[in-house]
Amino acid sequence: MTSEVISDPIDRTRFPIDPWALREIRYDPSDLGLTETLFSVANGYLGLRGNVEEGRDSYAHGTFINGFHEIWRIHHAEDAYGFAKIGQTIVNAPDAKIMRLYIDDEPLLLSVADLQRYERTLSFRDGVLVRELVWRTPSGKHVQLRSRRMVSMPERHLAVMDYEITLLDANAPVVVSCEILNRQDGQDEFHEESAAMGTGFDPRRAAQLAGRVLEPVSKWEGDGRSVLGYRVAASRMTLAVAADHSIQTTDEYEVRTQVEDDVAKHVFRIQGTMGTTTRITKVVSYHTSRVVPPLELVDRCRRTLDRAKEGGAPAIFAAQRAWLDDFWERSDVVIEGQPALQQAVRWNLFQLIQAAARAEGTGIPAKGMTGSGYDGHYFWDTETYVLPFLTYTSPSFARNALRFRYTMLEAARQRAREVNQRGALYPWRTINGEEASAYYAAGTAQYHIDADISHALSQYVAASEDRDFLAREGIDVLVETARLWADLGFWRKTDGEGSANLFHIHGVTGPDEYTAVVNDNLFTNVMARANLRAAVRSLRWLADHDADSYARVLTRLSLTEEEIEEFSRVAEALHVPYDEGLGIHPQDADFLSKELWDLPNTPPDKRPLLLHYHPLVIYRHQVLKQADVVLALYLQGDEFSLDQKRADFDYYDPLTTGDSTLSAVVQSIIAAEVGYADLAERYFHTALWVDLADLHHNTDAGVHVASLGGLWQALVAGFGGMRDYLGVWSFDPRLPADWTSLTFPLTLRGNRLRVKVEHEQITFTLETGTATSLPLVVQGRTVEVTQLCPLVVPLAPPPLLQGRPSVRDIVGAVREDGSVMQATVPAHPTTLEAEESLLS
Amino acid sequence: MTSEVISDPIDRTRFPIDPWALREIRYDPSDLGLTETLFSVANGYLGLRGNVEEGRDSYAHGTFINGFHEIWRIHHAEDAYGFAKIGQTIVNAPDAKIMRLYIDDEPLLLSVADLQRYERTLSFRDGVLVRELVWRTPSGKHVQLRSRRMVSMPERHLAVMDYEITLLDANAPVVVSCEILNRQDGQDEFHEESAAMGTGFDPRRAAQLAGRVLEPVSKWEGDGRSVLGYRVAASRMTLAVAADHSIQTTDEYEVRTQVEDDVAKHVFRIQGTMGTTTRITKVVSYHTSRVVPPLELVDRCRRTLDRAKEGGAPAIFAAQRAWLDDFWERSDVVIEGQPALQQAVRWNLFQLIQAAARAEGTGIPAKGMTGSGYDGHYFWDTETYVLPFLTYTSPSFARNALRFRYTMLEAARQRAREVNQRGALYPWRTINGEEASAYYAAGTAQYHIDADISHALSQYVAASEDRDFLAREGIDVLVETARLWADLGFWRKTDGEGSANLFHIHGVTGPDEYTAVVNDNLFTNVMARANLRAAVRSLRWLADHDADSYARVLTRLSLTEEEIEEFSRVAEALHVPYDEGLGIHPQDADFLSKELWDLPNTPPDKRPLLLHYHPLVIYRHQVLKQADVVLALYLQGDEFSLDQKRADFDYYDPLTTGDSTLSAVVQSIIAAEVGYADLAERYFHTALWVDLADLHHNTDAGVHVASLGGLWQALVAGFGGMRDYLGVWSFDPRLPADWTSLTFPLTLRGNRLRVKVEHEQITFTLETGTATSLPLVVQGRTVEVTQLCPLVVPLAPPPLLQGRPSVRDIVGAVREDGSVMQATVPAHPTTLEAEESLLS
Repeated sequence: MTSEVISDPIDRTRFPIDPWALREIRYDPSDLGLTETLFSVANGYLGLRGNVEEGRDSYAHGTFINGFHEIWRIHHAEDAYGFAKIGQTIVNAPDAKIMRLYIDDEPLLLSVADLQRYERTLSFRDGVLVRELVWRTPSGKHVQLRSRRMVSMPERHLAVMDYEITLLDANAPVVVSCEILNRQDGQDEFHEESAAMGTGFDPRRAAQLAGRVLEPVSKWEGDGRSVLGYRVAASRMTLAVAADHSIQTTDEYEVRTQVEDDVAKHVFRIQGTMGTTTRITKVVSYHTSRVVPPLELVDRCRRTLDRAKEGGAPAIFAAQRAWLDDFWERSDVVIEGQPALQQAVRWNLFQLIQAAARAEGTGIPAKGMTGSGYDGHYFWDTETYVLPFLTYTSPSFARNALRFRYTMLEAARQRAREVNQRGALYPWRTINGEEASAYYAAGTAQYHIDADISHALSQYVAASEDRDFLAREGIDVLVETARLWADLGFWRKTDGEGSANLFHIHGVTGPDEYTAVVNDNLFTNVMARANLRAAVRSLRWLADHDADSYARVLTRLSLTEEEIEEFSRVAEALHVPYDEGLGIHPQDADFLSKELWDLPNTPPDKRPLLLHYHPLVIYRHQVLKQADVVLALYLQGDEFSLDQKRADFDYYDPLTTGDSTLSAVVQSIIAAEVGYADLAERYFHTALWVDLADLHHNTDAGVHVASLGGLWQALVAGFGGMRDYLGVWSFDPRLPADWTSLTFPLTLRGNRLRVKVEHEQITFTLETGTATSLPLVVQGRTVEVTQLCPLVVPLAPPPLLQGRPSVRDIVGAVREDGSVMQATVPAHPTTLEAEESLLS
Repeated sequence: MTSEVISDPIDRTRFPIDPWALREIRYDPSDLGLTETLFSVANGYLGLRGNVEEGRDSYAHGTFINGFHEIWRIHHAEDAYGFAKIGQTIVNAPDAKIMRLYIDDEPLLLSVADLQRYERTLSFRDGVLVRELVWRTPSGKHVQLRSRRMVSMPERHLAVMDYEITLLDANAPVVVSCEILNRQDGQDEFHEESAAMGTGFDPRRAAQLAGRVLEPVSKWEGDGRSVLGYRVAASRMTLAVAADHSIQTTDEYEVRTQVEDDVAKHVFRIQGTMGTTTRITKVVSYHTSRVVPPLELVDRCRRTLDRAKEGGAPAIFAAQRAWLDDFWERSDVVIEGQPALQQAVRWNLFQLIQAAARAEGTGIPAKGMTGSGYDGHYFWDTETYVLPFLTYTSPSFARNALRFRYTMLEAARQRAREVNQRGALYPWRTINGEEASAYYAAGTAQYHIDADISHALSQYVAASEDRDFLAREGIDVLVETARLWADLGFWRKTDGEGSANLFHIHGVTGPDEYTAVVNDNLFTNVMARANLRAAVRSLRWLADHDADSYARVLTRLSLTEEEIEEFSRVAEALHVPYDEGLGIHPQDADFLSKELWDLPNTPPDKRPLLLHYHPLVIYRHQVLKQADVVLALYLQGDEFSLDQKRADFDYYDPLTTGDSTLSAVVQSIIAAEVGYADLAERYFHTALWVDLADLHHNTDAGVHVASLGGLWQALVAGFGGMRDYLGVWSFDPRLPADWTSLTFPLTLRGNRLRVKVEHEQITFTLETGTATSLPLVVQGRTVEVTQLCPLVVPLAPPPLLQGRPSVRDIVGAVREDGSVMQATVPAHPTTLEAEESLLS
């Protein structure tokens, strides 16, 4: 198959290409849910969906604070021992975005307004959402409006918004009602279509909370400032929100204020004169806590606002720009000569840092702070998909995310007890550290999260050389997760004389959620092996280099040399299933004995499968939601030869639906590595446009953070060919044929390395940092980059496979009449093609 | 191991032995929940728990009507496609049992009353519960009280109770308040201990309904009659209850009546004189419906009561006795020389017929009408455990139960669609025909229920020769279930040259609920094969003998000769897993690769396992809740040799916890067959006393109907050695050494055959019926019993194995240090011994 032009899925008459911004130049209310998500602003702590200033014409209002959640009792229709008991759902916080406008007492309502001009821009450099429009009011007056909204990166608890009104051709009374509105989570429902649980359902949506969630505790108003304080009904978390209001105008005006339990209003009534520009600025602060009383949080809000007043809004905007300049300097990925891709990549990276930057003391939710999808929970997404980006570009943010897991360690120990194991078992999904997954087959059974966390932790330590974190906290995570593996599995002698005594792990679910509760899942076993080895290696390193810390660790964890030896033995005996006949790694012990799913004859309206087939039906077939073995080939790539990777990829790729957005990025990386250049690029595109083109029809519930993180990996590890095995950084690029170059920076041991990939060469520049040189491996050859000058290394051509894999006669699958299954299954379209059809 | 005396677990100072009654001669409130269940009276439609007449001192009030249920929306904490949506819970009907007594205005309250004499008797012959006591009132007067309660077998909608009061030594005002009280199911909670879901849980208990369940629709009172009518809030079922009250006395009295929405009172105020006996009689009728308005049901109650008035209470009691005389004549099992066993066996059979007799148009709930455990649902228990008893002693009741499944066929077809299959899939648990199991792994995944129903249906048809039922209704069930199997599984060529093309069934759960969602479960495959063969055989028979019916069937079911051929091919290719190395049948494709559960080191306070271990932990081990392969060895016994049965039993018996009451009876039958005489007897005892000695600590929630039915099979098939393979009745008895004889009747093709088993011989007597002779097989030899005279056949001694099986080195299970698991596992106690310790 030759490379085809992959078309741009975006309507450029509405969203023109801009390499540094997402721009919308035509108002369209038909996809409000999508655009509210795409235009979100957030900083990893506070997130504001792109709802219009007016507070009307919304699909879903959203003001989310990372980790600010309500709890509720899970009522299992049939309960069993150890099932998760407490549900956790992110709370929609009081909405401080609202600035309603009235001209001649007529409200501006975009869906019906006569808009003479309209433009909305989310600038990736400024970190500001700007809306500019000209409204022809019902009485025929023209008003020019410009509003800005940002959530501060440097000031975690701060948001700023302003509104400029210019009457172009007449005088008119102007009213701007600045509000903080607590809509109550229970009533703040999604669009009917998705909320209608009666006719359909989607387990990926948030649970609906019933009754009053936020109990008002405190309210105050004065000197242009409004303050509201709340406590969450059951979780007892606390929140305060405060806003300072100011006006710049030469017109006469008066101010009316009102503060009640669920609303604080600051209403400017202006005698608007033609040609005058009036600007109203609202500076908002949110503080939340698990324990601090609301009144204390109110004080914190005051202090944040007082400090913000010092330089005023201009200083806040300037600081935002400076912060982002620094971010882009250490994180920007440049694709030469591909402006549409460049824009999409930067939007992805921008949303990624909006989800992760200030997530301090919390995880990074699956939807960031852009929606309530997945209840605001933290999954393995953070470690497997997002952490690499942070580790190699913003290591201090990676450290924060890993420290959050460390703070959850005691809860994970407790959870291990609940499921009758030693060590620690991290919850599959959680906000507060407790397991919130009510469906264990695709939840608690995904024990691999322990190994995923350990993998990210080891990678962070190797890339940052943050030995202090390792010795004081990280090592505890590595050891307790290693303990779980050693306890979870068991020894069994294989049949036959003189056979090996192997260690098996049964009854677990791997990453592929279309296969559940299996024995010896390859991904799990390979990752558990790495987990055990990492614990042993780190302990040995400590023993050799930091005897005091080592002694403290042994005491703290009641650890003995014997147990460390056991970790080693278990690791080296861990069973890695391999099928000699097919020459591939089975996804699990029984995977190859299953019936093949007949994907070519599965109609499009039955996709994704999870919404149309009972789990039992899906589970009993060879069909994948997402990369599983293929993910192992990536994460533990030094454990597999290129030929093995190729064989495995050829087998699994045609069986992979990609119904999860976690899939395409991984398929892209391995497709690139094994030589399917065209396929790698196609998978890259399906990942790149997941949110921007709403490929999974649920971006209205928030961005797909894991896919965003995976996209960076598809660029750096896939096309850039970068790998990090135990702190050895290697590069074997696979630059797409139609790209001129790909450039990205990496932060390695505190040094900034910029990598430029071209077809014939790769160039390394050591820009900042204390290292005088860094060792790297390029296509198997060790090279050294120094601070003196850029290092240019010529590249050998990468392997190139023609076409793409298809279902073959690989499992002896025959029909009842004796015909081979494969005979009726031509090279069939995977989800990729279904999605590509959307791209056209 | 030599046979030991198995001790009687019953406190005979309180419950003396009586071969025809359960008697209690000392009041003891410490186990109210248990005795309320044990003294229940019911007729398969209406059931009254053994609550005291006074309506106080209750553990759980209970008035249950088979199939009378409320529905509720199942809220899955994480939903998925095809999960059950509507929960169903039996409703606690308005309580008409209450007859409160006051002497000198002092209420009789058993728990504090000064009882001079006390006796409660449930007569198996009379079908009446009688309570007699002498109460010394607080003022020192002695009153003799006698009350009776019965639910009529011949009159399905009728119950009668009376109360006799005799003042022995003084005059006193006597008040008897006869009440019908609607407590509202929601408030009618279980004892705190079990209702406290906060600290513990037990999935075997009923769901708690919230809010008002019964909406009052109608009330009326007059002429000594009270009537109440209700509609169930969500299910819209309707109920009417009516009571006639009468008094026989020579004392003066007056009557006050009161009727409100939730109570109807008929209060007798008597000027009691010493020596006079006053009798108050209450005749009660219940009618329920899915569609008929309450007022129509009120009319039906009136008609039932009017008819009951004709002969009065004496006639009702007499009819009950006559009905039961007939029942015992066709059903009694006599164990010569074992009065304690005899009593327990008769109590079991009596409760069994109380659960099944008038279950017309409904199934037989897991707890009969004696409690709300398992929500009043119907399971495979009916077909696998209860039906054989009915088929061979009361075939018309068996027909009713099977016709109920036929009426559910359309819902089962619909359910098959919901789980993406052809044919029909019966719900794992249901009242109204819809799947109510919210936990698919031990619910919907138990597809074997289809084969269980077909098995019972085929057996009924063979034993009754009810070809009419087969041709008009039964065949539809056989074909639609066969269709499910042909669609559910798939063809796969085994590895290796010239290997067979076999049919596999993946992703199902067998009877053993400690192993879930497996491939090629032996029980399922063997039973599915029988199901497919039964469909083909029945179709072929129809084609040969009833061409018209056959043609109608083909049309009705859109059935073709090709599809029938496919059923045959699938049946004969169905994979039956067998392990050559161990010489046993694996429970499923992967069972033998699992880790052994360390039962000897599982402390007693961790039993049953399901209440102390997460399902994932249980599932990944070799440990059984109940007989699985062993059940297949019984139900499809002609498919396995005696040596195979012995090898399989030896393997599985030590791994079987018996945490389900469905287990012991089956283990007993196969233990007897393979030669473990002592073990067979011990298992029989654990089944015999399940309820009477409350061995599973939950008889308070109702009797274990499946165990009751299984017990009959343990007697007839286990010790009597009777089997029925395709209508060939064979006998190979295993009479316990300390039993003199075992006698039981069987109804075969409408003829009554009485079988008397002694150690040296077996005697058959053809008592009634039209057949002049019946062919039978005794220890492999065909004999003919005729109406002329009893047939005596001498018996060869049965096989006898010493001791009992224990865990051996059967799976190569080795510890990490290389030691074999078995080395640390001596012949270990199964649940049997834990339970036996309770028996001592």
